[in-house]
Amino acid sequence: MQIKVVKNILDASRRIAAENRALFDQHGIYVINLMSSPGAGKTSLVENTIRTLQNDFGIGVIEGDIQDSYDAERIGRLGVPVVQINTGGACHLDGNMIRETFTNFDFAAIDLLIVENVGNLVCPAEFEIGENAKVMLLSTPEGADKPAKYPLMFAESKVLLINKIDLAPYVDFDLDKARRDALAINPDLEIFEISCKTGTGLEQWLEWLRQKIASVKKR
Amino acid sequence: MQIKVVKNILDASRRIAAENRALFDQHGIYVINLMSSPGAGKTSLVENTIRTLQNDFGIGVIEGDIQDSYDAERIGRLGVPVVQINTGGACHLDGNMIRETFTNFDFAAIDLLIVENVGNLVCPAEFEIGENAKVMLLSTPEGADKPAKYPLMFAESKVLLINKIDLAPYVDFDLDKARRDALAINPDLEIFEISCKTGTGLEQWLEWLRQKIASVKKR
Repeated sequence: MQIKVVKNILDASRRIAAENRALFDQHGIYVINLMSSPGAGKTSLVENTIRTLQNDFGIGVIEGDIQDSYDAERIGRLGVPVVQINTGGACHLDGNMIRETFTNFDFAAIDLLIVENVGNLVCPAEFEIGENAKVMLLSTPEGADKPAKYPLMFAESKVLLINKIDLAPYVDFDLDKARRDALAINPDLEIFEISCKTGTGLEQWLEWLRQKIASVKKR
Repeated sequence: MQIKVVKNILDASRRIAAENRALFDQHGIYVINLMSSPGAGKTSLVENTIRTLQNDFGIGVIEGDIQDSYDAERIGRLGVPVVQINTGGACHLDGNMIRETFTNFDFAAIDLLIVENVGNLVCPAEFEIGENAKVMLLSTPEGADKPAKYPLMFAESKVLLINKIDLAPYVDFDLDKARRDALAINPDLEIFEISCKTGTGLEQWLEWLRQKIASVKKR
């Protein structure tokens, strides 16, 4: 009897992510993997992003949640294709779950794919799903000590959106410390201060995203 | 050659948790396992709890973080014994990590052991560490949809502390929905509305805790 050993399950995960990525590249789709703590405002950001960009670009959305489909219903009202992944307890999305959604999308009509991960500041940062960029939100009520306490998320992200900036005065959020600690972990991190509620700062984020979509645009 | 297979790693984990629990019972120590999203106010709650109860009870604290020891330093300033666990990436505490701290405590002098878990609304709910009660915080800026989206945490907890109640007017927090959805998942859940910043509601939480400590008190 021969016993087969999967030496590194992460290798399989990385291979699937690379395959996803190749497929997205082939179709000229820019893919963001959106991550944050629960309740930091991911779905609100997705809504705001779609409303502004949907006249110019084809947008698709994958919603990741442990259970339920509330977020997909919110996004579906905006008239864009959306697929809900229920992880059934798992604390993050992986490349294989993303691949399972592909039959639901017409990739020829999509320029931007937004993947909203499970709300969790730890586990999602460990997994690639085939994204061009990990984008994270930190909301001001969470506190400015989060970069120092959850460094991997900040290290892996290309963009940090500091959300709920309108609440900063009420929660004693030390913006300088958050910026300084985040950049110490990841000097290349793009940081935007935003409020999905008031609209503050969204223009800069959307301009960054427009440029990225253009950079991979369909020929 | 014989290959040993650990059939269910969770069995080992449960066994260790049960051993921890037996040891706590033997010493008349009440143990809470404190869980929440990042930045919901766990450490502030621990500080408030210690300040009020430390004249009446012996209190010990275990701080769980992926890395760093900021929280343990905050707690240490209050003059209670505290041990920092660094999980080195792991998203939750388990019974074995708790056991590793035991040589640092004089159990004869402790009536209440507070374990502050890693900030994460998903994974910590899956593990027993030998606690008498899982206690969770939900902060109002996270939104009232959290019970429906992260049900296991609400199902496993004995107490739900709705924290940052002072911010509720600024964040459109639907308190009725949060209560209703949480109780639908767990009808026995004790719910207290608190603010660690203003002190609102802390008396009721502390009274609950006093009674629990008394119920297991050293003879």
